[in-house]
Amino acid sequence: MRAMDEREISPAVIDRLPRYFRYLGVLKEDGVEKISSQELSSLMNVTASQIRQDLNNFGGFGQQGYGYNVEYLHEEIGKILGLDKQHNLIVMGAGKLGQALINYMMYRNRGFLFKGAFDTDASLWGRTVGDIRVFPPEKLEEFIRDNHIDIAVLTLPKTEAQATAERLAAAGIRAIWNFAHVDLKVPGNVLVENVHLQDSLLKLSYKIHSYERDN
Amino acid sequence: MRAMDEREISPAVIDRLPRYFRYLGVLKEDGVEKISSQELSSLMNVTASQIRQDLNNFGGFGQQGYGYNVEYLHEEIGKILGLDKQHNLIVMGAGKLGQALINYMMYRNRGFLFKGAFDTDASLWGRTVGDIRVFPPEKLEEFIRDNHIDIAVLTLPKTEAQATAERLAAAGIRAIWNFAHVDLKVPGNVLVENVHLQDSLLKLSYKIHSYERDN
Repeated sequence: MRAMDEREISPAVIDRLPRYFRYLGVLKEDGVEKISSQELSSLMNVTASQIRQDLNNFGGFGQQGYGYNVEYLHEEIGKILGLDKQHNLIVMGAGKLGQALINYMMYRNRGFLFKGAFDTDASLWGRTVGDIRVFPPEKLEEFIRDNHIDIAVLTLPKTEAQATAERLAAAGIRAIWNFAHVDLKVPGNVLVENVHLQDSLLKLSYKIHSYERDN
Repeated sequence: MRAMDEREISPAVIDRLPRYFRYLGVLKEDGVEKISSQELSSLMNVTASQIRQDLNNFGGFGQQGYGYNVEYLHEEIGKILGLDKQHNLIVMGAGKLGQALINYMMYRNRGFLFKGAFDTDASLWGRTVGDIRVFPPEKLEEFIRDNHIDIAVLTLPKTEAQATAERLAAAGIRAIWNFAHVDLKVPGNVLVENVHLQDSLLKLSYKIHSYERDN
């Protein structure tokens, strides 16, 4: 028998969790102490019953007639998201996108520490991006081991992505945040989250095209 | 009565369209002329019946016993995605993320032309990123009108995002590609596609945490 918190959570719920975390974080910053599912509902543009259902996956958190304690719920969702643990990251590909991500994400995310970057371009070796040093690929396995790296960010050309992903998997990486414009094939124990920027822009283009046709 | 290509397409299908386009583009580059839904299925890790269903939304394209003509299907999906039309883009916020996006996306996407960037930071005015000039916000409305801008990319702090989105909507922009870490409230005729990088990283963290708990 599995405990309640171990049952299978649907991808749609997982998609919404970071959004709950974000809204609760803003409410907390604004000094809001409690919120009803109705208020959260109108704020987030999700039905109140959806919110109750989603949170019931993790055991509820709400009190009938009181609503949710903002700080507590924010903290608990943070734990569900694994934010009570530290993650160590490396960036594979220190080109423009890799550099921007380091600079953009580095100070914004508690729990996620950028430890180093790797690039095949020798002119970048030894340089720093933010505070992050760029290393040659030869150092990869040793670096992953010594620095307890669990997440690799892939910001390299799609032609190099699959081979790099396999090497990272063999080196014991736990998860890949993939910005390369290709779907990776990795062992089941390596978790992948894709950010396909081109696909996202094409979806926007589809929406424009489809809106113009229908209106 | 609405013609077949005008019926409502589900968001899940729209999510998959850019991926079909991407795989067909690679096949085309590789010189593949035709492909069965079974072959495409194993390549894309989607069931063959899913592929047939998805494409039937747009009238099919396949021939029984032949499969799909790769170049034709690539072209047709491109049209469905609105790639037979040119889109003119501006970037709101020429900081590190904005600059990286301009440099990263500029040469990769036929049909999407970056025309200019805007920033409140006066030290950036007149400078260029790639070939793209940075302008002061005062020029925004005139620039949108004169350059037939239909898409604005939002790469600015979340505190400025909502006000900027409203100004863009009033200036007649059609769509917003939003990288700010906030959900925008805009009129229904302004289409929004979000890239919430923090949310994506939190999803990856959730997956790691949940995998470790279950294994």
